[in-house]
Amino acid sequence: MAASKRIPVMEIFGPTVQGEGMVIGRKTMFVRTAGCDYSCSWCDSAFTWDGSGKDDIRMLTASEIVEQLKETGGAGFDHVTLSGGNPALLPQLGELIGLLHEEGMQVALETQGSRWQDWFPAVDELTLSPKPPSSGMKTDWSVLGDIIDRLRERAADFSLKVVVFDDADLAYAASVHSRYPDVPFYLQAGNGRLQETEPARMLPYLLERYEWLIDKAMRSEELKRVRVLPQLHTWVWGNKKGV
Amino acid sequence: MAASKRIPVMEIFGPTVQGEGMVIGRKTMFVRTAGCDYSCSWCDSAFTWDGSGKDDIRMLTASEIVEQLKETGGAGFDHVTLSGGNPALLPQLGELIGLLHEEGMQVALETQGSRWQDWFPAVDELTLSPKPPSSGMKTDWSVLGDIIDRLRERAADFSLKVVVFDDADLAYAASVHSRYPDVPFYLQAGNGRLQETEPARMLPYLLERYEWLIDKAMRSEELKRVRVLPQLHTWVWGNKKGV
Repeated sequence: MAASKRIPVMEIFGPTVQGEGMVIGRKTMFVRTAGCDYSCSWCDSAFTWDGSGKDDIRMLTASEIVEQLKETGGAGFDHVTLSGGNPALLPQLGELIGLLHEEGMQVALETQGSRWQDWFPAVDELTLSPKPPSSGMKTDWSVLGDIIDRLRERAADFSLKVVVFDDADLAYAASVHSRYPDVPFYLQAGNGRLQETEPARMLPYLLERYEWLIDKAMRSEELKRVRVLPQLHTWVWGNKKGV
Repeated sequence: MAASKRIPVMEIFGPTVQGEGMVIGRKTMFVRTAGCDYSCSWCDSAFTWDGSGKDDIRMLTASEIVEQLKETGGAGFDHVTLSGGNPALLPQLGELIGLLHEEGMQVALETQGSRWQDWFPAVDELTLSPKPPSSGMKTDWSVLGDIIDRLRERAADFSLKVVVFDDADLAYAASVHSRYPDVPFYLQAGNGRLQETEPARMLPYLLERYEWLIDKAMRSEELKRVRVLPQLHTWVWGNKKGV
């Protein structure tokens, strides 16, 4: 029975604050799934797909995940973020989302928009984050466009988010925004220092990158209806995992 | 004719990013009005009400404000934030909001929730920010409750935001949230260093205050459906005005 297929889980942690995009600041628990169809050059969770984390993968049922969320997070949360890797590779996540809703939880999910799943409209806050040139990935515009059409039809609450490292990424972001001007749009300053272990050394760098992005976005006439955000958790915790 | 009464304006600036609450990161222009019915001990815009900025007040018509927004902000914005002081003291703001909408702009506004105005439901993103004990102000719960009832009736897009400096403020925030659990709720770390002129010296302090607030909110079972945010512009620009 497909509905109870196990889910490859790398990490369950929280409660913590969401650091990104449309759910920035939200008190949430994280479930990070393993596996990705992309291999972005600057991926901050490459352990989910490059083999380095394969011993940490646990194959859990949806109800085991809910149990572990409660065990880890206690009674003080009502929001769960599903992240990856690319959680949109997993048709069986629909069951988990249903169980979480039964528990009164809200569910946010982030994916690059390379695959559709029928459970997308059930996600309370869905972020589509197509990857800019610096990632080394190519966007399949017809797949992304099809996903956006279907989400619009179902009146789902979703947004687009593009991580920006340089001018080519910014031009890519502007083209995404101009294709889908009605979709809430987030620009996020990229983190190019994934090896830095000292949060205090990260902050001046992240601040400089965020200011650079603000400056570019403020000068642009194409980028009007946008939000420009940092990756907030890296400002607080640097590259530390599990927070 | 009341509709064309002039508006006391202290500052018009931007485009810049919104630093707070439900509109965090949004590319926006700011219009800051003069005058407030409160005098919060830690107000970061006391010049709007303590007399120190009275020579900067200009009495402008709604269309003069729109003109000046265009002159200052150019063609790259479609969002305006009305702030104060307390802009809710000004019945004549309704005309400005109408003009901005005619220009295709979205309008955000922040007020403490001490006065109702009939134009509240026309605001695209309305933040009610009742003031906690550290401010020295007292909340009139019946006025705040009446405002929230009316906004709910009109299905307005609004949120509550409480600035938190200490444990008493946090208890106040929890009580606001428990009164109106269905209203999107934001906790914001307070800035107690309004005299610091060097942004680099602000950062460690702001980070410490934000981490403190995150830690408290994560441990709380009352504070579940919350967002915990810094005052983002102070991280970038410190206490500098007009950015």
